[in-house]
Amino acid sequence: MSEKKRRAGVSTDGPASSSKKPRPSAAASYAESLRSKLRPDASILATLRSLASASTSTTSSSSKSKAAAKSLADHDPSADPAPSYIVVADQDSASVTSRINRLVLAAARSILSGRGFSFAVPSRAASNQVYLPDLDRIVLVRRESARPFANVATARKATVTARVLSLVHAVLRRGIHVTKRDLFYTDVKLFGDQSQSDAVLDDVSCMLGCTRSSLHVVASEKGVVVGRLVFADDGDRIDCTRMGVGGKAIPPNIDRVSGIESDALFILLVEKDAAFMRLAEDRFYNRFPCIILTAKGQPDVATRLFLRRLKVELKLPVLALVDSDPYGLKILSVYMCGSKNMSYDSANLTTPDIKWLGVRPSDLDKYRVPEQCRLPMTDHDIKVGKELLEEDFVKQNQGWVKELETMLRTRQKAEIQALSSFGFQYLTEVYLPLKLQQQDWI
Amino acid sequence: MSEKKRRAGVSTDGPASSSKKPRPSAAASYAESLRSKLRPDASILATLRSLASASTSTTSSSSKSKAAAKSLADHDPSADPAPSYIVVADQDSASVTSRINRLVLAAARSILSGRGFSFAVPSRAASNQVYLPDLDRIVLVRRESARPFANVATARKATVTARVLSLVHAVLRRGIHVTKRDLFYTDVKLFGDQSQSDAVLDDVSCMLGCTRSSLHVVASEKGVVVGRLVFADDGDRIDCTRMGVGGKAIPPNIDRVSGIESDALFILLVEKDAAFMRLAEDRFYNRFPCIILTAKGQPDVATRLFLRRLKVELKLPVLALVDSDPYGLKILSVYMCGSKNMSYDSANLTTPDIKWLGVRPSDLDKYRVPEQCRLPMTDHDIKVGKELLEEDFVKQNQGWVKELETMLRTRQKAEIQALSSFGFQYLTEVYLPLKLQQQDWI
Repeated sequence: MSEKKRRAGVSTDGPASSSKKPRPSAAASYAESLRSKLRPDASILATLRSLASASTSTTSSSSKSKAAAKSLADHDPSADPAPSYIVVADQDSASVTSRINRLVLAAARSILSGRGFSFAVPSRAASNQVYLPDLDRIVLVRRESARPFANVATARKATVTARVLSLVHAVLRRGIHVTKRDLFYTDVKLFGDQSQSDAVLDDVSCMLGCTRSSLHVVASEKGVVVGRLVFADDGDRIDCTRMGVGGKAIPPNIDRVSGIESDALFILLVEKDAAFMRLAEDRFYNRFPCIILTAKGQPDVATRLFLRRLKVELKLPVLALVDSDPYGLKILSVYMCGSKNMSYDSANLTTPDIKWLGVRPSDLDKYRVPEQCRLPMTDHDIKVGKELLEEDFVKQNQGWVKELETMLRTRQKAEIQALSSFGFQYLTEVYLPLKLQQQDWI
Repeated sequence: MSEKKRRAGVSTDGPASSSKKPRPSAAASYAESLRSKLRPDASILATLRSLASASTSTTSSSSKSKAAAKSLADHDPSADPAPSYIVVADQDSASVTSRINRLVLAAARSILSGRGFSFAVPSRAASNQVYLPDLDRIVLVRRESARPFANVATARKATVTARVLSLVHAVLRRGIHVTKRDLFYTDVKLFGDQSQSDAVLDDVSCMLGCTRSSLHVVASEKGVVVGRLVFADDGDRIDCTRMGVGGKAIPPNIDRVSGIESDALFILLVEKDAAFMRLAEDRFYNRFPCIILTAKGQPDVATRLFLRRLKVELKLPVLALVDSDPYGLKILSVYMCGSKNMSYDSANLTTPDIKWLGVRPSDLDKYRVPEQCRLPMTDHDIKVGKELLEEDFVKQNQGWVKELETMLRTRQKAEIQALSSFGFQYLTEVYLPLKLQQQDWI
């Protein structure tokens, strides 16, 4: 460990300065001036400890959303005529199976009583999706439409729904996990193309009030994690301080994750794998105890579920390191309040109160990111940025609004890697430590 | 372990048969008939053992390519006026650094002698790339063009080349690894866009006769591995039988991988992560000792380097499980003889004599893959397929030619997951064991 500590320690020579003449020498010397601002790690760690302990008590919104999920988990949607909105919850196989049985029995009764065969399917239309400020999540208003078999318009879809229900039932019975693709291939002729079985799978999720992961249908994972974390993946104990530079692939099926333990002080959520690699190679988590994870761009379901589990169980503050562009913020929003097309599942996928550590638009000047490392925003960037300003989750955080306005005013964006212009290890040796020291997150 | 063994064992109830009426019941019963053909695992394992021991002695081509790399590693290309072709090799930091120094000194001398400043850059044009049957690899013919600074056409590129050389020098001096993106960001103004720094980086690789990984510039990894493998990632001991379902992310920097040990009998190379997940969840490697890895589609450099390392050090047979379409074969070709745009690096990236286990076009009928799970080939598929028939690496394997002809004749393709139509675990419980038992690979 000590050997690693050293490796993670601040190196004394300038960040690749010798290789950067003439312009970068200025940058390098500036980096040095910032480096001199750094207090001893001990004092920064003290700050982080107080932060961590504070966070343990004040995970209000996350516990709130947990509560929300719970309350809906307890009652059976199909029994309730019209609750205000749908938030599906994690369910064990037994309860999902019994919910399927109930649905099928209801259908059977309806047939026998001559009323024919029909499913009541909640609408997942965008118009039906709302952001609940108190829950700080996008949810689905409960508005169900009938999907009768005895109707040319819906006969096919009703059949597909029945088929998907039976397949999910079979998967649960075997106690295995499958991908959407596997599901599709069990009956290509019926499903036609995967988008159809996928869509119905989401319907089924809403109908049963279960998360897709409790249906044991998993998305392929692309996330990785390293740092001060120990957990069991399908019974195997994983020590994420012992996962080298490559890190541990985040398991696709969250319900096989257990025994989460950590002595970390915070969770560092990284947008890009390049930054992740830098942090992993420098063993950043040995200098500042943390859990580092990334979904390598757009967050996938597995990574979002994993982050939420960590947040809920460890109650650690989550600090996000993303690009300073509208997409960095959009990615943050997906982690925090879910993506539109899976809104119904948002309670179980979202991690509220993530702090925006950087790279923030104000950092570009504050940390003197060289002009040539900033990129002009495209018209599309600006359009997305303006849309974000209208989003409720942004509006309710004045700090974010200011940053976004700065971005749109300067019309400049920058990637995390732009910091490489101060030396390849500037991110881990100067920028992040300084951020942590100054508690510079919003 | 025993508990896992059981999990990996053949389950007795039909593959989700109860959930598949009417058509699939036929499929399920067919699956059962195949299942009955299975000999006891012990006898299959005996077959595999003999295969493994055989492979240990006959890794001719791989050792050949190693030799080739070696022989070129030993002599310094820049010293040699015109060897027939370029195959760059892994070099340690010290030797790369000294090669850079030599290049720069040569440039300096040339300036002082009034001949001006110029680099000799090997051409990486497609026209310059040839397939060497004896090496079974694509390589680069040595044809150098001058890149003088005193020429408007090349002044910029010469500057970029000098800059990249100095950056690589700095990275090596610090003993760290960076991504292409990091390199780009150290001087955005000069490089303009990343494609330019990337291209020059490849030039530098050829100029120095070093692999890109020995320049410590790594690509972001996306591969994962599980199974009977133990190795050290940056000093951390990784036991891949203890990596749960998620598996271990393959490290981006192969030179940090060491201490490779295994009691596996073969390496199972999987195209898709869905199939990987099935194999990992069923702990297939506990029933048939093997190492299972995937690059989740198009093979990335890190995964190709990792597979090669395993093959060279463990001398195990490599069996490939890919989709039955032209891309499955194309992916196989990338693992086996490299991709065109990195041909110069092929010696260090390629793993010769990979066996095509399946899913092969002939399997579709042999294993009665239902019509609805086969997909019609698009015109583009057919075009790609025909092109493959012209490729030397296909031509020299009659079995492959036959299969490809079958594909083009039937105009049908199928994904690995198509086997799910016989039950979600058909792949691990019937198809693969039977393939291994019958040594059905080419």
